[in-house]
Amino acid sequence: QELGLWWTVPRKGWLWAQWYQCSGSAAKSLLFRFLPFLRWLPRYPIKDWLLGDIVSGFSVGIMHLPQGLAYALLAGLPPVTGLYSSFYPVFLYFFFGTSRHNSVGPFAVISVMIGSLTESLMPSEDFMISVNGSNTTIDEERRDAARVELVAAITVLTGIFQVALGLLQFGFVVTYLSDPLVRGYTTAASVHVLVSQLKNVFGISQGEASGPLSLFVTIIDLCKKLPGTNVGTLVTAIIAIVVILIVKELNHKFAAKLPMPIPIEVGSVILPQIIVSTGISYGVNLKEKFGISVVGNIPSGLKPPVVPNMSYFGQVAGNAFAIAVVGYAICISLGKIFALKHGYKVDSNQELIALGLCNFLGGFFQCFAISCSMSRSLVQESTGGNSQVAGVIASLVILVTILKIGELFRDLPKAILAAIIIANLKGMFKQFKDLCTLWKSNKVDLLVWIVTFIATLLLNLDIGLAASVAFGLLTVIFRTQLPHYSILGRISDTDVYRDVVEYEMAQEVPGVKIFRSSSTIYFANVELYAEALKKKSGIDVDRLIEKKKKALKKLKKQQKKLEKEKAKRKKGAADTGSPSLPQHAEDGPGVSVIELRSEESGAPSEPTLQSLGLPKPNFHAVILDFSPINFVDTVAIKILKNIFRDFHEIEVDVFIASCSVSVLAQLERGNFFSSAITKASFFPSVHDAVEHISRERHQASVSTQPCCPSMAMERAATSTPPSLPPQVDHSTRM
Amino acid sequence: QELGLWWTVPRKGWLWAQWYQCSGSAAKSLLFRFLPFLRWLPRYPIKDWLLGDIVSGFSVGIMHLPQGLAYALLAGLPPVTGLYSSFYPVFLYFFFGTSRHNSVGPFAVISVMIGSLTESLMPSEDFMISVNGSNTTIDEERRDAARVELVAAITVLTGIFQVALGLLQFGFVVTYLSDPLVRGYTTAASVHVLVSQLKNVFGISQGEASGPLSLFVTIIDLCKKLPGTNVGTLVTAIIAIVVILIVKELNHKFAAKLPMPIPIEVGSVILPQIIVSTGISYGVNLKEKFGISVVGNIPSGLKPPVVPNMSYFGQVAGNAFAIAVVGYAICISLGKIFALKHGYKVDSNQELIALGLCNFLGGFFQCFAISCSMSRSLVQESTGGNSQVAGVIASLVILVTILKIGELFRDLPKAILAAIIIANLKGMFKQFKDLCTLWKSNKVDLLVWIVTFIATLLLNLDIGLAASVAFGLLTVIFRTQLPHYSILGRISDTDVYRDVVEYEMAQEVPGVKIFRSSSTIYFANVELYAEALKKKSGIDVDRLIEKKKKALKKLKKQQKKLEKEKAKRKKGAADTGSPSLPQHAEDGPGVSVIELRSEESGAPSEPTLQSLGLPKPNFHAVILDFSPINFVDTVAIKILKNIFRDFHEIEVDVFIASCSVSVLAQLERGNFFSSAITKASFFPSVHDAVEHISRERHQASVSTQPCCPSMAMERAATSTPPSLPPQVDHSTRM
Repeated sequence: QELGLWWTVPRKGWLWAQWYQCSGSAAKSLLFRFLPFLRWLPRYPIKDWLLGDIVSGFSVGIMHLPQGLAYALLAGLPPVTGLYSSFYPVFLYFFFGTSRHNSVGPFAVISVMIGSLTESLMPSEDFMISVNGSNTTIDEERRDAARVELVAAITVLTGIFQVALGLLQFGFVVTYLSDPLVRGYTTAASVHVLVSQLKNVFGISQGEASGPLSLFVTIIDLCKKLPGTNVGTLVTAIIAIVVILIVKELNHKFAAKLPMPIPIEVGSVILPQIIVSTGISYGVNLKEKFGISVVGNIPSGLKPPVVPNMSYFGQVAGNAFAIAVVGYAICISLGKIFALKHGYKVDSNQELIALGLCNFLGGFFQCFAISCSMSRSLVQESTGGNSQVAGVIASLVILVTILKIGELFRDLPKAILAAIIIANLKGMFKQFKDLCTLWKSNKVDLLVWIVTFIATLLLNLDIGLAASVAFGLLTVIFRTQLPHYSILGRISDTDVYRDVVEYEMAQEVPGVKIFRSSSTIYFANVELYAEALKKKSGIDVDRLIEKKKKALKKLKKQQKKLEKEKAKRKKGAADTGSPSLPQHAEDGPGVSVIELRSEESGAPSEPTLQSLGLPKPNFHAVILDFSPINFVDTVAIKILKNIFRDFHEIEVDVFIASCSVSVLAQLERGNFFSSAITKASFFPSVHDAVEHISRERHQASVSTQPCCPSMAMERAATSTPPSLPPQVDHSTRM
Repeated sequence: QELGLWWTVPRKGWLWAQWYQCSGSAAKSLLFRFLPFLRWLPRYPIKDWLLGDIVSGFSVGIMHLPQGLAYALLAGLPPVTGLYSSFYPVFLYFFFGTSRHNSVGPFAVISVMIGSLTESLMPSEDFMISVNGSNTTIDEERRDAARVELVAAITVLTGIFQVALGLLQFGFVVTYLSDPLVRGYTTAASVHVLVSQLKNVFGISQGEASGPLSLFVTIIDLCKKLPGTNVGTLVTAIIAIVVILIVKELNHKFAAKLPMPIPIEVGSVILPQIIVSTGISYGVNLKEKFGISVVGNIPSGLKPPVVPNMSYFGQVAGNAFAIAVVGYAICISLGKIFALKHGYKVDSNQELIALGLCNFLGGFFQCFAISCSMSRSLVQESTGGNSQVAGVIASLVILVTILKIGELFRDLPKAILAAIIIANLKGMFKQFKDLCTLWKSNKVDLLVWIVTFIATLLLNLDIGLAASVAFGLLTVIFRTQLPHYSILGRISDTDVYRDVVEYEMAQEVPGVKIFRSSSTIYFANVELYAEALKKKSGIDVDRLIEKKKKALKKLKKQQKKLEKEKAKRKKGAADTGSPSLPQHAEDGPGVSVIELRSEESGAPSEPTLQSLGLPKPNFHAVILDFSPINFVDTVAIKILKNIFRDFHEIEVDVFIASCSVSVLAQLERGNFFSSAITKASFFPSVHDAVEHISRERHQASVSTQPCCPSMAMERAATSTPPSLPPQVDHSTRM
């Protein structure tokens, strides 16, 4: 309020201030939503958090260095872009992010997705230059420049997708990436990462394969070239991997014994990796002695922003979308884990916008698309990081590196970067344990995991993801297509009805079949539902109807014959005056003749099964337990109508119990109800239906009236509440 | 039995007879299954059915003639193949089919699917020959031969797919083609048919476009060429269309007045169409006078079988599969309609095999893929056809035509065939009325119809079908993703619980929130479920937990401080012997200090919300109504666990009611149960859960004990039956 008054003083900001006053709170809440740091920074508990954040920031910053370089290698880009990607997005996330512990930045899976794209669209072969006539080499500078341009376009587009999805509140798209899917996918991505780094481990120069099955092409090609292994590179890589893994393991054990989170964790893992190995390469001059390829020149200083080349957008739209969704999925799942642990909330749409802005703006500064890294985030949290202030400090560490000490890494062998990448995959490969867990807990989810893994291996990361999501959704269909059908019985003295096969205590209500499917019904399974109902009812309904139709036809024929004769006799009687013969003389055996009064009285009364000499089914009512029915479509309604018609044909009444209000509304709109099927057949629960039926039977036996479906109408005003909702318009809910 | 003894006489057939005796009934039933005519032909009621079948057979046979020629034109093939396709499959179906009224043979939708394939793989442009140097014409003979070869391969492959699906009992695949989908698809196919025939109506020669959007390319091309319309052709076509439609309409009116089904229906529709118009073309010699293109030479006699060129199989596999599925879907839906009407049964897998064998064998004799025609089947039924004897007679009519009188049709203008095709589309276009019906009955099905229609128009018949099926399945996901969440209340004096918003009579049970989703829960909607539950519960659960955690942290800190001081004081007291100060002196406002005994007693007892000075929620129990839950996956289980944990955190018990046995088994396998979540939280119905809760509360208030979740354990032996199934292994059911 005071601030508001101060602003009204006419000056430069006057107009804005007016607007601010008018729509003050709305604008403020909007501003707070899109720039969450405005909310938490003023309340930042400096005393409690700052030290932890600084320690954590330095740790994460130091971790960023090798990871950035390594992931740039993975993305097929010059190393310095990895440093840029570790600086800009991390810094920007401070302003927009809502997670306090996520360490955004380069991530292996996203990097390999980018890498497969750069290698298929900009293969090294396109940048050959001839040196001394026939001898050709790759013009790396030109290639790198072209790739940086391409990746900038991908990154900006990824950001645009993410911001758009966030603004449209479409954060829910990641729900399609179910847990087993994401884990299967990232495991397969790790295999891709591993295979892509083998050439650096063995010191082999290898062309890039792309398209489906490229993984296997690469492996076969690698095997062929194995004899050309650079021993120096291989030894360096193996030593590096072993050292990193040992230090990691030791550190893991140490961490449990050390009560205080200190940066030794990071220092012991990362610093030796880099400095010692870089030192070694300096010392023995690996490059010249063994021909080991090294990182090479890292230009100092930042680059001015460049508008991305939008002509690439069409080519990379699909991949950019995949990167946007996968990147977000990883971030939000990590963010939610930390939020749960520390009792705060991440806003899933704001996270999407934050990530999108990081990518979008980063794309102008030669960054590649980023996500969150599990390993870095864990370090950020465990070393005492409490807010994104740690992120800012980490980004400053990177900034200093870019500006001043980048060239220290010039002679770092690529084999060591490959080793860092491979050692970091350890956690990912642990996900193979899921196979065991899922086997025990849920076979369908296991199937999703395996299909995702194989599809991603075979079809690569883009098409594999699409295929996996499609399969994941199909499993929902499969699950509803193979339901468990059961006949329910009453557990005596209760109103509980259970499957008679599975519960010994459940006993069928005499004369009543209570049928239940474990799944909802719709076009893909409703015919199975009808078939199962007929099969479980214990009699061949269709055969009985067929027999009835035949008998009716025969009856009609006889009736006609009789009438003809009657007319003849009448004529004869009129002529001769003799009395008519008894009609039943020429009846067929087993078929008693009923007068078809349809032509006489106008109101046709159907002959009963009994009168046609057919066996009556041993039940007089069917109750369909509709509690698992979530929705119905037109196909389902058609088949349901058939069920009612078929059972009425064999003199069995059909009732529906526990139908939900929304399903009832859908039935109503779908013209389910008619003179033959009324709402009187609907009951709030199976027990109500059973009680109604037994009441009806009792009354019928007392008054010796035949039980007819229209009698069900009379019970509309009984104590059971109406199963009809008040007139609520459901159409908007679809 | 007697027959068996006779067979045992050692002779040529001895071995087979032995086998026959051994596995007699099994083999017999198998034979009867695959050759259904063995069952019904011996029982054929000659007196009752034969006349009707002969009349019907002739009618349908005469209808086959123009339709066969026309659909061959549609498929881009020489006319005689249409006659072959009307002969072989129809004849073969007699032996294998189970539908008594279906008229198999060429069908517009299937023909246009083949046509789009021949035109894209074998465009006329590939068969240019130069006449007099620059002037090129199409070598029709060579083109037709190549196309016949291609289509034979498609047809055989279609047959193979159908037989394979039938043998694998995969007839259910057509359930994915829901009713709205098939109707939208066939309507769009009709548009394709119409557009493909316009060039024959206008007498324009037009190249064939293929691929997505080819429909619009064709229309635009046609519009450009309109000035080159052949007036003679256009007039012929328009007259033919008008005459056919008028005769059809008159016949329709006539039919209602004539009690006896006589072939006048066919005669009046079809015969004049052909004979008169052919006569006219003879008379005025349209071909020479106006340059109207005619059917051309129809070779007499049958061709020897040719093994199809299998090298095409790879190219056409996708399309052949689409043709197989669509062809079958149309047949089975027609067959079921007739079966229902006449009270017999069609075996859906045998139908698939029958159709497959018709196509497979037909493919060797230059047939193109067939299905059933609605119009012909209706004629077959209405003219008194009762069995496939009518089909055999129809096929003999065609055979005579092929052998003897085929050349009569030589001068039939193509424009008249186009007119026949277009006039026959009338029924298909009537399906646009579905839009109105579906708008009223089911919006989602309307959406499926429209999306199918548009996708099929834009993407053509093959990709359009795939996209439509994918969309149809997605709607199931959408439907479950946007469920209706509600809080249930009890309708007083009953055990019925209903949505409190929709039922005025339903009143919330005090202190108990009963929550229900209209849909099942799984990975794509379970987070929404949890969110909706927390929102509908009326308090900000997450905020409360956050507050609790903060308060706890504060408390712990104070506790530590206190202890330090205590220790100091103790030390001081030990030193000085002075009494310790009262501890509560330095408490913060609003936070009462509870002793955290965790470090002392080893068994930590959590401080309550009340003791932390936080508001208690106005309910003490949540009941999740699980009746609409069809299955759960690992993601759902994870989130459900979180729901239990979160609500326990704020001292609310969670109960699950009406959980189905299969879901319970899935929960069990998914490690849902733990020390915190036991089966004691499960109740067979909402009412049982409510009663249990009120009992518990009553006991608690009587004995003034606090209500704790572990008390729920005690009610295991109460009168409510156990919600646990006996140990039935459900794993096979997945």
